[in-house]
Amino acid sequence: MSNVFTVIMAGGSGTRFWPLSRSSLPKQFLPLTSKQPLIAETMKRMAGLSTPARTSVVCGAKHAALVKKALPKMPKQNVVVEPEARNTAPAIALACAHVAHQDPEGVIVVLPSDQHVADVAAFQKSIEEAVRVAQTGFIVTLGIKPTRPETGYGYIRLGEPMSGDARKVAAFAEKPNHETAQGYLVSGDYLWNAGIFVFRADVMLAAFASHMPELVKPLENIRAAWGTKKAAAVLAKEFKKMPATSIDYGVAERAPNIAVVPSSCGWSDVGSFNALPEVRPTDAAGNVAEGEALVIDSSGCVVLGGQKRVVAVVGMKDVVVVDAGDAILVIPKDKCQDVRKVVEALKAQKRLKHLV
Amino acid sequence: MSNVFTVIMAGGSGTRFWPLSRSSLPKQFLPLTSKQPLIAETMKRMAGLSTPARTSVVCGAKHAALVKKALPKMPKQNVVVEPEARNTAPAIALACAHVAHQDPEGVIVVLPSDQHVADVAAFQKSIEEAVRVAQTGFIVTLGIKPTRPETGYGYIRLGEPMSGDARKVAAFAEKPNHETAQGYLVSGDYLWNAGIFVFRADVMLAAFASHMPELVKPLENIRAAWGTKKAAAVLAKEFKKMPATSIDYGVAERAPNIAVVPSSCGWSDVGSFNALPEVRPTDAAGNVAEGEALVIDSSGCVVLGGQKRVVAVVGMKDVVVVDAGDAILVIPKDKCQDVRKVVEALKAQKRLKHLV
Repeated sequence: MSNVFTVIMAGGSGTRFWPLSRSSLPKQFLPLTSKQPLIAETMKRMAGLSTPARTSVVCGAKHAALVKKALPKMPKQNVVVEPEARNTAPAIALACAHVAHQDPEGVIVVLPSDQHVADVAAFQKSIEEAVRVAQTGFIVTLGIKPTRPETGYGYIRLGEPMSGDARKVAAFAEKPNHETAQGYLVSGDYLWNAGIFVFRADVMLAAFASHMPELVKPLENIRAAWGTKKAAAVLAKEFKKMPATSIDYGVAERAPNIAVVPSSCGWSDVGSFNALPEVRPTDAAGNVAEGEALVIDSSGCVVLGGQKRVVAVVGMKDVVVVDAGDAILVIPKDKCQDVRKVVEALKAQKRLKHLV
Repeated sequence: MSNVFTVIMAGGSGTRFWPLSRSSLPKQFLPLTSKQPLIAETMKRMAGLSTPARTSVVCGAKHAALVKKALPKMPKQNVVVEPEARNTAPAIALACAHVAHQDPEGVIVVLPSDQHVADVAAFQKSIEEAVRVAQTGFIVTLGIKPTRPETGYGYIRLGEPMSGDARKVAAFAEKPNHETAQGYLVSGDYLWNAGIFVFRADVMLAAFASHMPELVKPLENIRAAWGTKKAAAVLAKEFKKMPATSIDYGVAERAPNIAVVPSSCGWSDVGSFNALPEVRPTDAAGNVAEGEALVIDSSGCVVLGGQKRVVAVVGMKDVVVVDAGDAILVIPKDKCQDVRKVVEALKAQKRLKHLV
């Protein structure tokens, strides 16, 4: 598809994969689902739909080198450095400006850099359909058919049918409680919001003008400075003026021309170590065991050993054990969100070497 | 007490403290209860009753250097190297011969090298009483008043009263099942067999002659060769001929002149990581946390971190986490005996560097 551009959002700096992820090495650069970092798998997943030359990555300054290393086939100038993290809307605005400069009606596929897709063929089919709908002037999101009453995701309520599988979006819904999530699952009317958006550059720029007008002037100033000596300074100054808002809240929840393509592509946001058994090979007892792991009489465990030390896990159930060289983590699988407490404690104790 | 000799039995080579203990560094050389190795605490516990000069240690050849390092005040020649591990009776026979050579009526206190005593004053009082009874011709054992229905120890049934607190031994009992152990505890007639024996050298030598006569000739041959060039060769050859039997089975369970001094001295055999909360400081939630441990929202855990890496344990209950540099262990506290499965697996996989 000759006018499809891929924009990979790699601004994340989460701590949920500590001690593997650090401020200098966020999740998207970890090989969590294969031997490749998640961001490389993300670009690979678009093969045939887009090209490395038409792919760009939005990231923070300190991760630009990691992006270039992870995506060697992508031209280096396609790394778009955000002067600061300001959520997704300003980053997407910047990407739209770049694509519109080449092809105003170019279709942009916005992908988070840190997700997993098991069924790439199904994903590509869904993206192709989303591109077709986007070409008619819609902002299209991929909606993942839920497989469990997940309370960690936002949801999309299906609206009236369009051509093919696509539907209008009736509404976006916040992360539900368990009971509500169960109702969503049973109803069949709700899909997971995966943060994947497909749209024409000019359509999104028009949507910004309508729904986030305060973003327009800074973006114009940034464009006007392109190719001049002041480009970087203007970018830094004007980017700060853009509202630090998500594309969901700033545009998708407000615009009338929002569509959704339902997809069952084995999507996972790989939200924590807890998700790894979904996306990695397991043994007969459901354990993920990597590196120098020695797992005995255990079930449902995630044991990520390094290459040097043996990590022996005996008689444990549903526990995560990670050896990251300078730090070791032991935590129940269902409490993985509490990894942040370790990060907070290490910060409070000024043991920063285990964080960077 | 001028004629009290201490014989510390340090032949053990268990694997229950893997990955801290290795074949080159058995439990008795680990600082499990304080900053000192258990064997050093064992000698210190006899201060005032015996002296370093009257203390000897029986151990295997490959641990002699560790003994000398752990007990710098003990004369180096007091390290008695067993040519091979043959249980406790031959080792005690050898020690008896050495002491009898200096003082035939010298009193020997035989102590396992790898135990813990919380109340040293109570221990010394019990030993003093045992020495008095031993001087009258009895082989005396310390019987620990049980505090729980422990199924991991042998028991001593109290017989008729003697002078002071001492009692004749009615019988030795094997490790009981839980129900039997509960009965023992309630009855008040049973004490734990701590493997601590106190006796005159000549009395024990006579007991060997009566109850383990096959041990006498090899011992005589060994003594005859002392001070000659053949000493080591004769020791190696004759030691092998002695029955590889415990002093309990070979003598204590057969001799008529066996007494017991009941003691409540906070004794622990420190049998596994599980025992550490009994013998080490714990936090308010009952966790033992050493070295670079970071224990959050956890209770009843034993976390032994090293000095280099942070070991973060979050939301866990009653689990043991040990970082030993080249190996990490994670195991439930109540399954600590299964550590041997790791050792077996590493042997089977020829990953021997983690065992030595």
